[in-house]
Amino acid sequence: MDDPVLLTGASGRVGQAILSHLADEFEWRLLDREPIPEDRRYGVPESASIVADVTDDEAVADAVGGCGAVIHLAGDPRPNAPWDSVLTNNIDGTQTVYQAAVDAGVEKVAYASSNHAVGAYEAEERTPEMYRTDDEFRLDGTELPRPSNLYGVSKATGETLGRYYHDEHDLSVVCVRIGNLTKGHPPREYERGQAMWLSHPDCAHLFDRCVKAEYDYEIVYGISDNDRKYYSIERAKEVLGYEPRDNSAEYTFEGELREDAEHPEE
Amino acid sequence: MDDPVLLTGASGRVGQAILSHLADEFEWRLLDREPIPEDRRYGVPESASIVADVTDDEAVADAVGGCGAVIHLAGDPRPNAPWDSVLTNNIDGTQTVYQAAVDAGVEKVAYASSNHAVGAYEAEERTPEMYRTDDEFRLDGTELPRPSNLYGVSKATGETLGRYYHDEHDLSVVCVRIGNLTKGHPPREYERGQAMWLSHPDCAHLFDRCVKAEYDYEIVYGISDNDRKYYSIERAKEVLGYEPRDNSAEYTFEGELREDAEHPEE
Repeated sequence: MDDPVLLTGASGRVGQAILSHLADEFEWRLLDREPIPEDRRYGVPESASIVADVTDDEAVADAVGGCGAVIHLAGDPRPNAPWDSVLTNNIDGTQTVYQAAVDAGVEKVAYASSNHAVGAYEAEERTPEMYRTDDEFRLDGTELPRPSNLYGVSKATGETLGRYYHDEHDLSVVCVRIGNLTKGHPPREYERGQAMWLSHPDCAHLFDRCVKAEYDYEIVYGISDNDRKYYSIERAKEVLGYEPRDNSAEYTFEGELREDAEHPEE
Repeated sequence: MDDPVLLTGASGRVGQAILSHLADEFEWRLLDREPIPEDRRYGVPESASIVADVTDDEAVADAVGGCGAVIHLAGDPRPNAPWDSVLTNNIDGTQTVYQAAVDAGVEKVAYASSNHAVGAYEAEERTPEMYRTDDEFRLDGTELPRPSNLYGVSKATGETLGRYYHDEHDLSVVCVRIGNLTKGHPPREYERGQAMWLSHPDCAHLFDRCVKAEYDYEIVYGISDNDRKYYSIERAKEVLGYEPRDNSAEYTFEGELREDAEHPEE
């Protein structure tokens, strides 16, 4: 990707996982609601950062002009966020970004969806068994959303918006249902979190592939190659060339790196 | 259903198809943005009609209190409606109705979704063949939405909201992807419209079943039993007991009732 890549929500958790590994990989434009401090830009110049709200049509149109791809992360990230906030920041904001991308002739949008878009598949009768290595239950991205909260509803809506902008406006869209992103070790003593763990290096690598690969419309799961997984990563491997390096099974349940682990803790 | 049934959007096209057949079937409460004239109430007393916007939390809470079921039709019905309107009237309005229903202990919500939630399945390579009797292509409600416009995105979002309110709050929800509703004959000289035709009697009967049947969460197609169909009505038959009486094949392509038709034109 020679054209600039716009990263919305650059200061957030996912944005930082991406930037800390890929600052030199693309010509970035960084967008956030607040000015992005130097230690969160990883060498990206201040002149390439934009302070704007994703619900601001004009500001987003300016930010996206000339870009080849957008990684859209901005939004209210709280699973318990109230409806009014996710309606505005997540649903309306995401429509603004897709529309601006189409208007500007952007080629691809990688959209940060969430495990909360399908959280209600974790029904009482399936848990905690589904979080365990020997359980065969898998979601693969072809299933209908089953959000566990209104935040999850907003994320599922962003996926549907992406489908529309792909079908009707030829935008390439990949929706990444992000698992449990942590730096270093997987969540401690938390089976569900270990099953959907996404390490920082795998997160950055996955979004790198979202910018570089060719696709039409995809929904993929963003997790490391965890033994415990109940999300399939086959589609991400096949279509995007995702090759995760991490696996929560390389850590003890308490979060200690096992002695025979292939990769050092980040 | 002994408790009152709230009908939102009572003055609209679908609301009128329902009321004109079922005015005596339930104790109705009618809600619309404008006062409902007497000739659109079909004998339902003016005292049972409420003038309010579905985005008004308090008014909707008042309207729904004590009801056993809601048929939620209100919203901007234009397939080419702009984003701001469907965001407010359809997405926000539908969340308001579901939330009020849950808060009031309502048992069931029947939600008017639309063929536009899946309109982009009608891709160039499948049409017009898929509109024809001998074509086997079927959508059955288990497929992911593929909206053909932002109105369709808003309708798909109402389905996802319903899934959430069912899973997390135990509300029974049925989403009816309504086809092409016309009074009397099917759309003239329009293959697509004849394939997804929904007659007034079948529309009323289907929503009657939505109020009376028992279900958890369902997505069904609302069309008559047309020979041309590319939407399956099996799920509606099985779960709701839907027994459509009409079929666009009983009319000529030009919309004339055939001599051997089983049912008289309404």
